[in-house]
Amino acid sequence: MEPIQHQMMGYDRAITMFSPDGRLLQVEYAKRTVRLGNTAIGIVCKDGLLLVTDKRLVDKLVVPDAVEKIFKIDDHIMATAAGILSDARVLVERAQLKAQQHRVDYDTAIDNLSIVKDICNLKQLCTQSGGLRPFGVSLLVAGIDENGMSLFETDPTGLYYQYRATVIGEGETEVEELLHKEYKDSMTMEEGLSLAIKLLKKALNNTFNADRIDAAMIPLKTKTMEKVSKDKIEKLLK
Amino acid sequence: MEPIQHQMMGYDRAITMFSPDGRLLQVEYAKRTVRLGNTAIGIVCKDGLLLVTDKRLVDKLVVPDAVEKIFKIDDHIMATAAGILSDARVLVERAQLKAQQHRVDYDTAIDNLSIVKDICNLKQLCTQSGGLRPFGVSLLVAGIDENGMSLFETDPTGLYYQYRATVIGEGETEVEELLHKEYKDSMTMEEGLSLAIKLLKKALNNTFNADRIDAAMIPLKTKTMEKVSKDKIEKLLK
Amino acid sequence: MEPIQHQMMGYDRAITMFSPDGRLLQVEYAKRTVRLGNTAIGIVCKDGLLLVTDKRLVDKLVVPDAVEKIFKIDDHIMATAAGILSDARVLVERAQLKAQQHRVDYDTAIDNLSIVKDICNLKQLCTQSGGLRPFGVSLLVAGIDENGMSLFETDPTGLYYQYRATVIGEGETEVEELLHKEYKDSMTMEEGLSLAIKLLKKALNNTFNADRIDAAMIPLKTKTMEKVSKDKIEKLLK
Amino acid sequence: MEPIQHQMMGYDRAITMFSPDGRLLQVEYAKRTVRLGNTAIGIVCKDGLLLVTDKRLVDKLVVPDAVEKIFKIDDHIMATAAGILSDARVLVERAQLKAQQHRVDYDTAIDNLSIVKDICNLKQLCTQSGGLRPFGVSLLVAGIDENGMSLFETDPTGLYYQYRATVIGEGETEVEELLHKEYKDSMTMEEGLSLAIKLLKKALNNTFNADRIDAAMIPLKTKTMEKVSKDKIEKLLK
Amino acid sequence: MEPIQHQMMGYDRAITMFSPDGRLLQVEYAKRTVRLGNTAIGIVCKDGLLLVTDKRLVDKLVVPDAVEKIFKIDDHIMATAAGILSDARVLVERAQLKAQQHRVDYDTAIDNLSIVKDICNLKQLCTQSGGLRPFGVSLLVAGIDENGMSLFETDPTGLYYQYRATVIGEGETEVEELLHKEYKDSMTMEEGLSLAIKLLKKALNNTFNADRIDAAMIPLKTKTMEKVSKDKIEKLLK
Amino acid sequence: MEPIQHQMMGYDRAITMFSPDGRLLQVEYAKRTVRLGNTAIGIVCKDGLLLVTDKRLVDKLVVPDAVEKIFKIDDHIMATAAGILSDARVLVERAQLKAQQHRVDYDTAIDNLSIVKDICNLKQLCTQSGGLRPFGVSLLVAGIDENGMSLFETDPTGLYYQYRATVIGEGETEVEELLHKEYKDSMTMEEGLSLAIKLLKKALNNTFNADRIDAAMIPLKTKTMEKVSKDKIEKLLK
Amino acid sequence: MEPIQHQMMGYDRAITMFSPDGRLLQVEYAKRTVRLGNTAIGIVCKDGLLLVTDKRLVDKLVVPDAVEKIFKIDDHIMATAAGILSDARVLVERAQLKAQQHRVDYDTAIDNLSIVKDICNLKQLCTQSGGLRPFGVSLLVAGIDENGMSLFETDPTGLYYQYRATVIGEGETEVEELLHKEYKDSMTMEEGLSLAIKLLKKALNNTFNADRIDAAMIPLKTKTMEKVSKDKIEKLLK
Repeated sequence: MEPIQHQMMGYDRAITMFSPDGRLLQVEYAKRTVRLGNTAIGIVCKDGLLLVTDKRLVDKLVVPDAVEKIFKIDDHIMATAAGILSDARVLVERAQLKAQQHRVDYDTAIDNLSIVKDICNLKQLCTQSGGLRPFGVSLLVAGIDENGMSLFETDPTGLYYQYRATVIGEGETEVEELLHKEYKDSMTMEEGLSLAIKLLKKALNNTFNADRIDAAMIPLKTKTMEKVSKDKIEKLLK
Repeated sequence: MEPIQHQMMGYDRAITMFSPDGRLLQVEYAKRTVRLGNTAIGIVCKDGLLLVTDKRLVDKLVVPDAVEKIFKIDDHIMATAAGILSDARVLVERAQLKAQQHRVDYDTAIDNLSIVKDICNLKQLCTQSGGLRPFGVSLLVAGIDENGMSLFETDPTGLYYQYRATVIGEGETEVEELLHKEYKDSMTMEEGLSLAIKLLKKALNNTFNADRIDAAMIPLKTKTMEKVSKDKIEKLLK
Repeated sequence: MEPIQHQMMGYDRAITMFSPDGRLLQVEYAKRTVRLGNTAIGIVCKDGLLLVTDKRLVDKLVVPDAVEKIFKIDDHIMATAAGILSDARVLVERAQLKAQQHRVDYDTAIDNLSIVKDICNLKQLCTQSGGLRPFGVSLLVAGIDENGMSLFETDPTGLYYQYRATVIGEGETEVEELLHKEYKDSMTMEEGLSLAIKLLKKALNNTFNADRIDAAMIPLKTKTMEKVSKDKIEKLLK
Repeated sequence: MEPIQHQMMGYDRAITMFSPDGRLLQVEYAKRTVRLGNTAIGIVCKDGLLLVTDKRLVDKLVVPDAVEKIFKIDDHIMATAAGILSDARVLVERAQLKAQQHRVDYDTAIDNLSIVKDICNLKQLCTQSGGLRPFGVSLLVAGIDENGMSLFETDPTGLYYQYRATVIGEGETEVEELLHKEYKDSMTMEEGLSLAIKLLKKALNNTFNADRIDAAMIPLKTKTMEKVSKDKIEKLLK
Repeated sequence: MEPIQHQMMGYDRAITMFSPDGRLLQVEYAKRTVRLGNTAIGIVCKDGLLLVTDKRLVDKLVVPDAVEKIFKIDDHIMATAAGILSDARVLVERAQLKAQQHRVDYDTAIDNLSIVKDICNLKQLCTQSGGLRPFGVSLLVAGIDENGMSLFETDPTGLYYQYRATVIGEGETEVEELLHKEYKDSMTMEEGLSLAIKLLKKALNNTFNADRIDAAMIPLKTKTMEKVSKDKIEKLLK
Repeated sequence: MEPIQHQMMGYDRAITMFSPDGRLLQVEYAKRTVRLGNTAIGIVCKDGLLLVTDKRLVDKLVVPDAVEKIFKIDDHIMATAAGILSDARVLVERAQLKAQQHRVDYDTAIDNLSIVKDICNLKQLCTQSGGLRPFGVSLLVAGIDENGMSLFETDPTGLYYQYRATVIGEGETEVEELLHKEYKDSMTMEEGLSLAIKLLKKALNNTFNADRIDAAMIPLKTKTMEKVSKDKIEKLLK
Repeated sequence: MEPIQHQMMGYDRAITMFSPDGRLLQVEYAKRTVRLGNTAIGIVCKDGLLLVTDKRLVDKLVVPDAVEKIFKIDDHIMATAAGILSDARVLVERAQLKAQQHRVDYDTAIDNLSIVKDICNLKQLCTQSGGLRPFGVSLLVAGIDENGMSLFETDPTGLYYQYRATVIGEGETEVEELLHKEYKDSMTMEEGLSLAIKLLKKALNNTFNADRIDAAMIPLKTKTMEKVSKDKIEKLLK
């Protein structure tokens, strides 16, 4: 039976409905939203974590520095998203709150996996309760905690996987292929940044320029998130 | 697959439904409402912030001074809207309350970004919960706080961007193009006002007159919102 | 795309649904309800405020004096309506309660704009929440407070405008045109009443008679609402 | 556009839906229910109030005295109904409770208009909230209080009018016409009763008999409701 | 307009929907359920009340004595039902509780009409609230209280009538006709029982036997419900 | 009118909808679920109660002893089910809790009828409230209490009957017929067990074997439920 | 009547709807989701319990050690799943919490059956309440408690069975057949692991490799869950 027939029959009209072959079509459509979103790359390097994303600035009058595409969850955890960005903000603010609350309650930094699980629980709930819709966004969450460095990808169903390097959003299939070829565990953040920018350049083709790139890292030494300066990005672009 | 087919299939009947290509059509329709609204321009000038909007007075018996199209959120923050104006009022009153409450709780003025985020959280919620509809309105929010001057545009999905100069509502594509050409960071509020009025004049053509214009500014010196007098507008029109 | 097509597609079946061109059709239909209602005129005169309305008495056995079409909100504020009159009553009783409560809480008379905003907030809510319908009624609210005389018109979306003179209900387009021609700021209540009755007479044609007219005023001197006697109306009719 | 087309398009499937010409069709259908109900007549006489109604006894084994079609709200207020009689009972019991509560709270008898407004508020609510249906019943409420005698008719929308004489239910158009011709303010209750019975006889034709009639009055002298005896009715029938 | 057309148009799909001619079709269907139910007869005799009903035992292995088709509400009130019997049980248990509670609160026996009204209020509610369905059952409620003997029939809409003798369920039209002919106020319970059994025999034809009959009475002397023994029934059958 | 037409018209799409001939089709469908379930037989013997059921083990690797098809409600009450077994478990656990609570509250064993009524009340509720579905299961509940031995069958509507012997589930029509012929009140549990196994054997044909049978009894002497050993069953099978 | 016809008629659009032949089609579709999931095998061995599952790693950059497909509920209970994995996580976290709470409340380890029943109660609820969807996941739950070793399979309806060996997910029909042939009660965990891996290898064919396998055991000696090392798996693969 073909999907188009499922559409005719209306199996894709509600998240609370399975199709006859056992699929949740509304959730699959939400995943497609992610592939319409801006490209975002996460890389675990030898000396730290790296998130690089396309800001997609199409209007020259937007203030580029104010476009936040990489969010600080806590000093040691950061996240970026592809898909519906207002959905992402809801999830990020929830995570920030949870991290803060953890510091208040236990006086220690929260571990990365707890943040990821909490985000995914809310996402799962929104695939099961009528009257809501799934979150149309995937998140990359990168953090350093007692268990070391970790990079997670969460999808609209609430599923998560830990990656050494991954990409979400526009052109994810092409970039992923390149990432598989060129990624090495032994990369430094410097090398990782070069690679990520090279891949974004390919994905975005001639619309690419330094202003569109947002990048941040958490070095193993400091365990503290820092933004990558535009100067550095421009230097790497040459 | 064409949108018209999506309409036939009913993917655009509820905000809780994704279309097969991952879009939320009801939210996209809400954005079109904004483009039916009155033109509103926001400009960050060297010496202050500027909002200029078309009042769209079609009835001569309306009391022009009583038509509020630019709202004071607090002394240092103002907003204007395009789209469903009763929707705008709900959001503005909520923002006013939040600003007031902040003064009571912390004895300081709230920062502009907090106001914008709060508005956008409510907007996002209304794109995800069945039984509600998205807010059919975009807001321009301009304010001066500890971080300096800022001008934000929020759309019906709850997304926001910081701009140096922007336009929403009727004719936004044409005016935006002109704004890109003629806007300069070094403009004074005087020059910005002249530019804004010139652009509105072009957008509204022969239906334009001074009575239709509502304008307000927050000078860097005083950090306090003030309405631009009709006299001043008329002087600039000559 | 034509409205009729929108009807075929069902975009006009719920208030929580936008049409593809960004309209809320159910709310537009509610506005048409107003145009089916009885004609009501409000005029700001030199020496006071005036509301004049058609009672639409079709049954001779109805007790005319008991037909309340102009409601007292408080001593200094009055209202009339066109559209679904039971909807109007709900809004008027809410306003009366709010005015009373204000006297209890602050020992002063409420200002007219607060009454209008409160009515409009409820109206807006009913255009956004599924399971309800918009109020099918427009109100004219006239009052004298610290800011002087004011006359507001509120529509089913929760939008309001301040007018010097305005008309709602049956024949509103024709009467409005005449009102534009003949209204003057310098009119006395006496002259205003004459004008209003003349206009109603034209609108209602041969079904017109003195019994059908309800009129009330708030003179600047007393700032207290009073009904216009049937004698006075009959005198003016000659 | 014809109603039948509106039916095809489904505008008449929910009380929360306006038709394109601004009508609430479900509420109009509820009004038709009233016209299917038993005929009920109310008359304000010189010396008291009168309600006369058809009991519609079709089964000879029903105990006629137990068929209550005229309800006592309080000593000084009575009501009768046409339409869905179980709906009427809900409204009447609510009114009885309100009258009782008023005696407890203020130690005085409630005024007739307060009873009517309370009934109508509930009726209006049921025309605006999804998941309910309008009350399919009109009530005649007659009472004597400090303001004198009053007779109200409330319809399914929650609208009410004060009448000197009126009729609801089966044959209301024909009976109304006769009532207009023959009613006089100067009538005594005796004369009113004769008139009402004559009109019912015409409306019901050959199915008419004394057993089918329920009648009650509130004389100005006693201000206390009393049932009209079957003997009296039979005497008037000769 | 024909019912079949109303069905095509869907006016009979929800209890909250009126048809264009003002009918509640779902409620009318619920009444048809009653006519599919087992026949039940109630008779007011000179010396007491009588309920006789068909148990409809089709399975020989059912324990006949355990089939309760006549329920004791309290010592002085009993009831029987036709339609959905599990619906009946809900109503009967509610009535039993109410009677008990009345004894606790006031130390007296509840009157029959209060029981009937309480049942009917719940029934009415279920014809007006979406998400529920009407009770598909009619009840005969017979009791002796301070006002003497009374026998009520309540239908699915929540309407009730007081009868001297009545029948509900399968064959109600035929039995009613016979009841009209043969019922006399002067009957003793003995004679009433004979009549009821004779009528049931005719209604059930050749499927009739003594085991199928459930009968109970409340004699005026004792004012206490008692079951009629199978012996007595069999004697009357000869 | 034929059921198939009712299906075309959608009368069988919700439990809150009556068909034009007064039936609740969704509830009738739920009853069909029962007939798809495993066969279960209950018998009242001279010296005790007996439940015998088919375990329907189709997978050899299932642990047969762990397949509970006969549940202990309390020492003196047991139950078995046919239909959706997860639905059955919900009802059984509720009954177990109620029995336990009764022991705590009154320090005595609960009577069988109270258990049955409680189960049936929940079942009835689920046939009347939208947003739920009827329980797709029939239960046999057998118990010994102060009133002696009793065996009840409850269906999906919440109806119950007391039986001397009965069967539910797959092949219920054929087995019932045989049961009618061969059941005698004077049977011992030994004889009853032989009969039940013989009937199951016929119903299941060649798929039958001792492993598939679950049997339990409550002897009059002990008034305590005990499982019938596999040895005993196998002995009877020879 | 064929399923395809049921689809045309819409009986498979809601979990609260029975088809005319008494089936819950949405629940059956949910079961198909399980068969799309990764293969998982559970085996009860002489000396302990064994769960073996396919991790389905398709992306080489996923961190294999972080892919948890076998979850620890408590030291003595473990689970794995096939179907929607985010659904599984919700159920597993609930079970973990329940086990923890049991330790707090009673200071003993919870028994395996209580965990299974709790999971199944939630699953059943989601097949009966509108506005939710069934859990699209089957779980294998294996544990050792006072009653010895037990292995349960729970399906989307909330049904559970105890097995000696079982398989869920992709290729379950083929693997089951092999399991029936080769499983012996006398197997050691070592032998069971060999068997499970052999079967997975057959099911996954040429896409199989050691990285894809997740395995865990609870030895009878320690009664404590432990992961099987990758080394051991690779050794067995040779």
